[in-house]
Amino acid sequence: MSRNNERAKEVRDLLRKKNVYYVNIMSSPGAGKTTLLTKLIASLGKEFRIGVIEADIDSDKDALTVERETGVRTIQMHTGGACHITCQMSMEALEALGTDGLDVIFLENIGNLVCPAEFDTGSDMNLVLLSVPEGDDKPLKYPLMFEVADAVAVTKLDVAPIFDFDRERAVKNIGKRNKDADVFFTCAATGEGVSDLADYLKNRITEKIK
Amino acid sequence: MSRNNERAKEVRDLLRKKNVYYVNIMSSPGAGKTTLLTKLIASLGKEFRIGVIEADIDSDKDALTVERETGVRTIQMHTGGACHITCQMSMEALEALGTDGLDVIFLENIGNLVCPAEFDTGSDMNLVLLSVPEGDDKPLKYPLMFEVADAVAVTKLDVAPIFDFDRERAVKNIGKRNKDADVFFTCAATGEGVSDLADYLKNRITEKIK
Repeated sequence: MSRNNERAKEVRDLLRKKNVYYVNIMSSPGAGKTTLLTKLIASLGKEFRIGVIEADIDSDKDALTVERETGVRTIQMHTGGACHITCQMSMEALEALGTDGLDVIFLENIGNLVCPAEFDTGSDMNLVLLSVPEGDDKPLKYPLMFEVADAVAVTKLDVAPIFDFDRERAVKNIGKRNKDADVFFTCAATGEGVSDLADYLKNRITEKIK
Repeated sequence: MSRNNERAKEVRDLLRKKNVYYVNIMSSPGAGKTTLLTKLIASLGKEFRIGVIEADIDSDKDALTVERETGVRTIQMHTGGACHITCQMSMEALEALGTDGLDVIFLENIGNLVCPAEFDTGSDMNLVLLSVPEGDDKPLKYPLMFEVADAVAVTKLDVAPIFDFDRERAVKNIGKRNKDADVFFTCAATGEGVSDLADYLKNRITEKIK
């Protein structure tokens, strides 16, 4: 784990030299990472040259979706059963994708609310998704994931009326784990909240890259 | 891992002597394990004396819910950050719960579609839940979980019309991983499919216990 943290520092140093911003997206399976990512790329792609690393245990579905929907440079990484991305895997994926000519790289991590949080991927920020159907109690049950989050995007907000999901309770539960996390309420289907999140990312990116 | 498999055999041998049937429920976070479990207990509780082990990284919410909704003997296990239940943890939980006076014990595993599948808990069967909002492609992305499933319960069926979830595609994708898994379509909110699943469990239980 200490080796992983050293590598993460190396990755961040390298990305500063290359002038590339790196975002690690994490969530449960099926929380809407790929869909939200395509919407964010549609917005951020006007200003930044974007690349995507899709990590899955198996299947190429997400990389194909992102390529088809956005046209950005995308690679699919398979973890061979592993439940998380180590920084070594993250480095190899960045090399395989190639950082030249890119401003921003998104890593879509394995759908898992536990293990990916334990491994610093060398990213500049962790964006954690919490989908409405999962319930607003998840920060209580999966503490580390919310502790390492720089921002939390609640997704699938359009179905909030039919699920037992309370916005205030969600904010309160996230706050119990992490007072500094910025919380966004989004719906990729209706577009609600997506531009706020995109603006927030834009600010974070422009703080780091010239 | 081989030590874990030896222990799992010991657990099963012990449970046969005690005449107790043991069900391991696994799924993503928020797929509806607790809710479906309370409905199954309401049905199976007429014939069997039931106990429940709730496993979470943190929070006692699920054990409190199960106790309140069903009144059955329940314990909450905390894994101290661990993303899965080893057979050692399963044995200790069975001891803490106590098997005397019980016919059936349910273990609600950590919400995680990856790691719990790697550890045989000593259960007599694995019941895997796949919730509609997660999408019907999850068996393609999380192969092992569906390979180790004896039965798969699709949950939250009432919201199928508003999500991109196709029943036939779900059955086909599960079948790609596991031809022998029995698939049920359920909705705890409306009760749809719950009695079919309860009947199936009843048959499996009565095959094993006298």
